[in-house]
Amino acid sequence: MTNNSRIKPYKKQYNDSYTIGPYPTIELLKNKPDAVHAIYIHSKYKADAVIESLRGDIPLVMDDKVFNRLGLPENSYLIGVFQKYQMELEKHQPHIVLVNPSDMGNLGTIIRTVLGFGYHNLAIITPAADMWNPKAIRASMGAVFKMKIQCFDSFHVYRERFHQHQIYPFMLGGDIKLSYETCPQRELFSLVFGNEASGLDDSYHSVGEAIQIPQTKEVDSLNLAVAVAIGSFIFSLKNSLNI
Amino acid sequence: MTNNSRIKPYKKQYNDSYTIGPYPTIELLKNKPDAVHAIYIHSKYKADAVIESLRGDIPLVMDDKVFNRLGLPENSYLIGVFQKYQMELEKHQPHIVLVNPSDMGNLGTIIRTVLGFGYHNLAIITPAADMWNPKAIRASMGAVFKMKIQCFDSFHVYRERFHQHQIYPFMLGGDIKLSYETCPQRELFSLVFGNEASGLDDSYHSVGEAIQIPQTKEVDSLNLAVAVAIGSFIFSLKNSLNI
Repeated sequence: MTNNSRIKPYKKQYNDSYTIGPYPTIELLKNKPDAVHAIYIHSKYKADAVIESLRGDIPLVMDDKVFNRLGLPENSYLIGVFQKYQMELEKHQPHIVLVNPSDMGNLGTIIRTVLGFGYHNLAIITPAADMWNPKAIRASMGAVFKMKIQCFDSFHVYRERFHQHQIYPFMLGGDIKLSYETCPQRELFSLVFGNEASGLDDSYHSVGEAIQIPQTKEVDSLNLAVAVAIGSFIFSLKNSLNI
Repeated sequence: MTNNSRIKPYKKQYNDSYTIGPYPTIELLKNKPDAVHAIYIHSKYKADAVIESLRGDIPLVMDDKVFNRLGLPENSYLIGVFQKYQMELEKHQPHIVLVNPSDMGNLGTIIRTVLGFGYHNLAIITPAADMWNPKAIRASMGAVFKMKIQCFDSFHVYRERFHQHQIYPFMLGGDIKLSYETCPQRELFSLVFGNEASGLDDSYHSVGEAIQIPQTKEVDSLNLAVAVAIGSFIFSLKNSLNI
């Protein structure tokens, strides 16, 4: 796919993916320059000093047809093609754990949000939405390139690997009603959130102290990205994650 | 549009709109039965005791073609056609104010979120995304039918009408860095949030004490629905909105 004639609309099984638009492309170049194969630029985009200073030896190709071929509007302006890479979670940092997240937009928004609240480690329990899909990357505003994100086949596998973390599953019937006062203070913790539609099943009550986000009876539940935002923000304040 | 042969894909200028799927349709029937013209049901949907008990005299029409005509998948199952209605904000309740929100999905998510945190009054400063669009209604999970939502031509018009509310604009350069300790306690307050792309302009510094949500420098900003969630949640905790 380094050859420009080969770029195809993204599929999960490909080894490469791409960023769409200036903002995520700049984040890609700043944070993962070694993974970048090429930058494609639309003729309507004025060559940009930031891109020029960041790209180093990476080929810059002006080719409007690539935008058509990928089904992207002209005003996407920039595409950054890169090779997907593996990451490993840090053992001595707090983690966010998403169990079977299914929506790419939600996943991207969550990555951007938790990075904003001082988290750098995200575990994804598969099956799950593909974090490398250009739509997820776009929703993350390129935050995906600043995080350690690692997929695990099951929560059990994750748990075995990181047994020092205190686990806090977020559940509607949780024991702790989350507020600043009730929020736990811990050296190492993992905040665990379930799937958009089904949440976490009852077995998660046994993995740690379950937390519920207070909410009126007028709503059935909160949107997943909203629940992660509230949980990660309050834990960040209480545990001084330097935001 | 009470005549089934007349239902067309939604447009903003129409007097009617519709809910898609069981959950928002049930919320419509529970909360605004007088506005409902008809319920359309797909032949694959098993007649539902809840719908049957709620619908009273409202016509129930089994017609699979309506789903096609509106471009909806079969598993939407239910459509509730209703007449749009006017609402007025309550003077003695806290308000959420959205200035020029542009994304229907965000708008629906925000409506669902703030209802979950105990708010019942939402001001929308136009131009703005259409809250009656079926996509916004769907993202709200029907919460739109439990809220007072009123549109205003400008923030000034809103402010003149509700001059007793203490105004808190949410801005990146806000004076108060939001936490549980710093969160104001007030009898009446309005939390004001800007557009997804542009936020609030500097003139909002003069309408009240500006608030910023703490976030690392690694992100440019927060998603609008996330910002509203954090702000409304902390104010709700501090001001005991019974969540």
